[in-house]
Amino acid sequence: MIVRNKPNAFKILFTLRGSVLPLVFPQIAFMTMLGVVVAAIQYYYPNTFPDFTLAPLALLGMSLSLFLGFRNNACYDRWWEARKQWGQLTIDSRCLSRQVTSYIDGQVEDGVLVHRRILYLTIAFNHALRHQLRDSDPWEDIERYLEPKDIEPLRNTRNIPDALLRLIAKKLGSCRHKDLLSDFLIQSLDERMSSMAAVQGACERIKKTPLPFAYLLLVQRTAYIYCLILPFGIVASQGLITPLFCAIVTYTFFGLDALSEELEEPFGVAENDLALTTMSRTIEIDILEILGESDLPECIQPIKHRFE
Amino acid sequence: MIVRNKPNAFKILFTLRGSVLPLVFPQIAFMTMLGVVVAAIQYYYPNTFPDFTLAPLALLGMSLSLFLGFRNNACYDRWWEARKQWGQLTIDSRCLSRQVTSYIDGQVEDGVLVHRRILYLTIAFNHALRHQLRDSDPWEDIERYLEPKDIEPLRNTRNIPDALLRLIAKKLGSCRHKDLLSDFLIQSLDERMSSMAAVQGACERIKKTPLPFAYLLLVQRTAYIYCLILPFGIVASQGLITPLFCAIVTYTFFGLDALSEELEEPFGVAENDLALTTMSRTIEIDILEILGESDLPECIQPIKHRFE
Amino acid sequence: MIVRNKPNAFKILFTLRGSVLPLVFPQIAFMTMLGVVVAAIQYYYPNTFPDFTLAPLALLGMSLSLFLGFRNNACYDRWWEARKQWGQLTIDSRCLSRQVTSYIDGQVEDGVLVHRRILYLTIAFNHALRHQLRDSDPWEDIERYLEPKDIEPLRNTRNIPDALLRLIAKKLGSCRHKDLLSDFLIQSLDERMSSMAAVQGACERIKKTPLPFAYLLLVQRTAYIYCLILPFGIVASQGLITPLFCAIVTYTFFGLDALSEELEEPFGVAENDLALTTMSRTIEIDILEILGESDLPECIQPIKHRFE
Amino acid sequence: MIVRNKPNAFKILFTLRGSVLPLVFPQIAFMTMLGVVVAAIQYYYPNTFPDFTLAPLALLGMSLSLFLGFRNNACYDRWWEARKQWGQLTIDSRCLSRQVTSYIDGQVEDGVLVHRRILYLTIAFNHALRHQLRDSDPWEDIERYLEPKDIEPLRNTRNIPDALLRLIAKKLGSCRHKDLLSDFLIQSLDERMSSMAAVQGACERIKKTPLPFAYLLLVQRTAYIYCLILPFGIVASQGLITPLFCAIVTYTFFGLDALSEELEEPFGVAENDLALTTMSRTIEIDILEILGESDLPECIQPIKHRFE
Amino acid sequence: MIVRNKPNAFKILFTLRGSVLPLVFPQIAFMTMLGVVVAAIQYYYPNTFPDFTLAPLALLGMSLSLFLGFRNNACYDRWWEARKQWGQLTIDSRCLSRQVTSYIDGQVEDGVLVHRRILYLTIAFNHALRHQLRDSDPWEDIERYLEPKDIEPLRNTRNIPDALLRLIAKKLGSCRHKDLLSDFLIQSLDERMSSMAAVQGACERIKKTPLPFAYLLLVQRTAYIYCLILPFGIVASQGLITPLFCAIVTYTFFGLDALSEELEEPFGVAENDLALTTMSRTIEIDILEILGESDLPECIQPIKHRFE
Repeated sequence: MIVRNKPNAFKILFTLRGSVLPLVFPQIAFMTMLGVVVAAIQYYYPNTFPDFTLAPLALLGMSLSLFLGFRNNACYDRWWEARKQWGQLTIDSRCLSRQVTSYIDGQVEDGVLVHRRILYLTIAFNHALRHQLRDSDPWEDIERYLEPKDIEPLRNTRNIPDALLRLIAKKLGSCRHKDLLSDFLIQSLDERMSSMAAVQGACERIKKTPLPFAYLLLVQRTAYIYCLILPFGIVASQGLITPLFCAIVTYTFFGLDALSEELEEPFGVAENDLALTTMSRTIEIDILEILGESDLPECIQPIKHRFE
Repeated sequence: MIVRNKPNAFKILFTLRGSVLPLVFPQIAFMTMLGVVVAAIQYYYPNTFPDFTLAPLALLGMSLSLFLGFRNNACYDRWWEARKQWGQLTIDSRCLSRQVTSYIDGQVEDGVLVHRRILYLTIAFNHALRHQLRDSDPWEDIERYLEPKDIEPLRNTRNIPDALLRLIAKKLGSCRHKDLLSDFLIQSLDERMSSMAAVQGACERIKKTPLPFAYLLLVQRTAYIYCLILPFGIVASQGLITPLFCAIVTYTFFGLDALSEELEEPFGVAENDLALTTMSRTIEIDILEILGESDLPECIQPIKHRFE
Repeated sequence: MIVRNKPNAFKILFTLRGSVLPLVFPQIAFMTMLGVVVAAIQYYYPNTFPDFTLAPLALLGMSLSLFLGFRNNACYDRWWEARKQWGQLTIDSRCLSRQVTSYIDGQVEDGVLVHRRILYLTIAFNHALRHQLRDSDPWEDIERYLEPKDIEPLRNTRNIPDALLRLIAKKLGSCRHKDLLSDFLIQSLDERMSSMAAVQGACERIKKTPLPFAYLLLVQRTAYIYCLILPFGIVASQGLITPLFCAIVTYTFFGLDALSEELEEPFGVAENDLALTTMSRTIEIDILEILGESDLPECIQPIKHRFE
Repeated sequence: MIVRNKPNAFKILFTLRGSVLPLVFPQIAFMTMLGVVVAAIQYYYPNTFPDFTLAPLALLGMSLSLFLGFRNNACYDRWWEARKQWGQLTIDSRCLSRQVTSYIDGQVEDGVLVHRRILYLTIAFNHALRHQLRDSDPWEDIERYLEPKDIEPLRNTRNIPDALLRLIAKKLGSCRHKDLLSDFLIQSLDERMSSMAAVQGACERIKKTPLPFAYLLLVQRTAYIYCLILPFGIVASQGLITPLFCAIVTYTFFGLDALSEELEEPFGVAENDLALTTMSRTIEIDILEILGESDLPECIQPIKHRFE
Repeated sequence: MIVRNKPNAFKILFTLRGSVLPLVFPQIAFMTMLGVVVAAIQYYYPNTFPDFTLAPLALLGMSLSLFLGFRNNACYDRWWEARKQWGQLTIDSRCLSRQVTSYIDGQVEDGVLVHRRILYLTIAFNHALRHQLRDSDPWEDIERYLEPKDIEPLRNTRNIPDALLRLIAKKLGSCRHKDLLSDFLIQSLDERMSSMAAVQGACERIKKTPLPFAYLLLVQRTAYIYCLILPFGIVASQGLITPLFCAIVTYTFFGLDALSEELEEPFGVAENDLALTTMSRTIEIDILEILGESDLPECIQPIKHRFE
């Protein structure tokens, strides 16, 4: 994710970081060349393309605008929902920490141990969910927060975040037997875990269910057809600057399309994707601070305005 | 559901899997032929259609764009809500499993049995709901998860998923009598079941209440009228390439229309419908794993990028 | 509500059931006649209307499209929210049935009686709410589900559904005194009733608060003005087919307007309104089945694809 | 709020009640006069304004349509959310009445008194919130529902509705001490009060936070500029009917703008504002009926289709 | 935030307070000058720019309108969600105050002290969250509401609002040990704190996650390109008034863009940002009034219609 102050007008026109320009360069190059060819033919053999008017382009443009607008909205909603879900995870992690440290008696030795165990598992859940969504290996981040006896079974499970939630629930179940917690407070803590499971479910939904594939086909086919027709439609009136218009129009259409595609899968590591690493590190530090630990990992700093 | 990496530009223009092209082929063929006829008449008898301008098309296009855009949004919302509901079902199934295994004491023999019974019924609910929504026969998938004595009454009920929820509730009610569960925790578990009932209700709503029929008529009538007028409107300026424009415009209008129609009923087995079979199989495997069973069914693999 | 498979192209163009065509016939007829008159004058006295261009129509069309689109979205949202509320009522009725039969001990004779009383009142609530929303008389449908002593007071109340909820609550309150229910479970059941009250409140809101009247005026005045200007604007270029365009444009504008109006009040019995009778009958049958009764009313069958 | 059956076409074109026409009469008059002047100049000195085309108007119209559409949607959402909040208040009032009368034992004399006190305070909350939102004096409506000893402190408080909720909570707290209510049921009743506090908070939010002022400036400036340019743009082609188009276009733009402004503050007493008085009177009558009182205030009748 | 009655038409056209005009003055000035240059060249050397038509501008305008509309909606939604979250904080603060004063027995001396401590911490949370969101120093506002022993640890924490919530929870935990509160009521109070934590989380989300940077680039690049092309496109038809149109169009496009940017970060102190200071002061006064304190801080008065 790029976070930076608004650059000045000059930088806006020429920055590449965070821009989708590199992604759509091939299309722009191709369409510009097509524009050059068409304009050249028209220049040397006037009236080669006299019949065309812009009218069909306007009709087609209406559909294209509908498709691009819809796809952009749908993809942005996915991205923003994903961000909300991770915000919810942060909230749940904090609330769980607050509830555990306030309502499980920390005066008893057992209580302190339970605090640490549950809060460690909460950190591990944050890391494990991030790695699951990015298809990467979680062990480097989570191993230190697990009890040795839990590691082996976890290695054999297919769904690590859910197994971590069951470990927390088991801890709470044993608190109940030791009378460290009343059933009411178990209910409150259990709601947090259900909420964390809901976050996981929602993130999996976003990751595993892309927009129906047919939309991609409809949008891109219409955009390609539109841009292929464009130079023939405007060359009669625009003459030699036809390629310029081809480049600009291709940029706006395919640029929005490329951005939509990046936002459609918000859990990746592209420049406009969510800064999951930063967020899970922040919650890790917050929770370790609550536990009173002094050996805290460092905050993640952006590299060239970019958070991972 | 089609899940695949973005194909390259060439494949995008020519792939048929997941595309709505086959569905709208008749309309495209007819309108193209109409374009050919109109263009031919204009070619041999110039000025047959001199009076027409594009203006009325633009006016009509505005309405059509409004109708198509609205219908597409409404249908996509139905599809995405359906997906959210199934995501909620996955979440509820996992939470119920977590709660049952953590809060019903597994040390007692009775407890272990209750775990298995309730989790089996949860799996059966997932399968039964899928079959109900697809109007197919659930017995092959659910029979193995039922107690023999429950099968006969279930066969006589009209609403199997709801009857399964009542069976789970009955189990919990008997746990309460055996003091395996306190009333508080019953409350928490009951919330899960209410949530599962809500998923069922929402899915039935989507299945049984299509968009008002009058929208279909308005959209399609306007689209047909528009495409029928189109060649007469553009032939004077576009000449012999009129059929090409007819084909393209018909494709974009009827293509979006056909896609909307597919998304309107998201529980079917068309290429852009939801992968219910895959989702209920996944939750089945997850729950069996929680129960520590080793004889797991296989994950469903996509066939040519397609999940059912 | 019309539920039917998609008809073929021919039927779509000519079906009347579910169509808004009959509703807007007067407007179409009038505008077509106006088109005929204008075209005739132009034909016999050429250049009567030479000055007009389509430009002002395009400007006006933009506003009209904004108004129609907004009104359609708002009315559809009302319709769909109404459907969601009734779906919620179905869910609540089922959950209440499940909770009552599972958590109130059916072994005691008193318990069985309580089951029946509460479930009967739930059925009555469904019918009573439907009749309230349609301003019809509920007694034929609800009398059989009431205790004789409750009928008289109910007849004197202005708000029957709410009084039924209070009757259920009274039953539960007496269960509490007889120790048939713990306070926790009362809490769970009470939530259902609050949810049913919320459904009633939401339905009343939709019924009693139409879209601000000024929207109707803005939309219809603009549409009338637009259609009245239309023939003068296009007659110079379209000549004798002017009336055709007048008819088509009038159909799309007033058609959408008429459909919006039908959806604005979703509880009526127009062709695109909600099938409340079918839904309350279905829940009636479901609940009677749960009670093990054998004398079930019949499902409602659609008449010519139409559910009431 | 205007509630009436749809008038016929003639009445729609000429009714003033509920219309925004009077509000935008100055703008329409001014723009029409401007149109007259421009058309006259063009008539007597042809080709005074030959250079202008409609093109810049179309460009500007696009922005204006974006602004007007956005503002209208945002304002309507505020209006509808306000209505939903009042619907929620009705629901909460009914639920609180149901819960209080069912779960606080009415057999004991103390219980009956508590019923009356709490339900009276609920009525007072409805009235007090309405008066707070309309900046009017609540005492005429609420005094009869208060205990004399509570009146003085209430007169000195800045936030009467919130103080009423605290009075109800105090009553419940004392019920708890007298063992009229268990803590569970206090929890359920407390949820109602939190929900009523949420309604108050949401209504205050809508009342105190208008749309950012800059939108008003953007919309109105663009609309004024557009309408000022309009006659110069169309006079060359439209000639003497220019003023007519000026009037129509001004009506649609400023009409929508005026309606948005009325809906932006839905708690006022303008013709399209919410019927708060009617709603709080209805809930007053409902609650008094529940208490079995016979001296009920009268329902509010609409005056010329209008509810306050 | 600007709150004022609607000014008259003259003031609307010329007011600067709350307007985005000063923000976009550079762009308007530059584009107007460009228009002047282009118009001058065309005037002295006619037919320098004869080839251009408006068509490509219309195509580009469609994209630009899509981008601007989307960005405006997304930013307004952020602003309004931020306002809702602060409304929720007000509601939670009031509910917490109500619950604490009603359910913790104020007759015991300890109880009164607990009331004060918890309500003071609630005020401190409001101030601390505001300062966190504005990156300012909270100590002036919160110090007086803290116990001396809590100040030092708070100074060392990175997340003051969350630490304040943990302090409240600790207070409640100790109430539980002293039997001032039952576990049920702890549950109810804990829900409030979770809700306040959710408000904090949501506000942090809005503050830390701007709209994807690529949108800014797409919108601004397209707007600059559009405005740079504009004078060449219209000079042939508009002649010497070209600069006027350039100024107007630049104002509408960049004006909306600048407003979107201001709303994107609603917690700042720009003229259209939220009045956080006013809101937290109001809740401070309300709570102190509930505690019966007489030395209340003053309400914040707007300066030239503006609340901070």
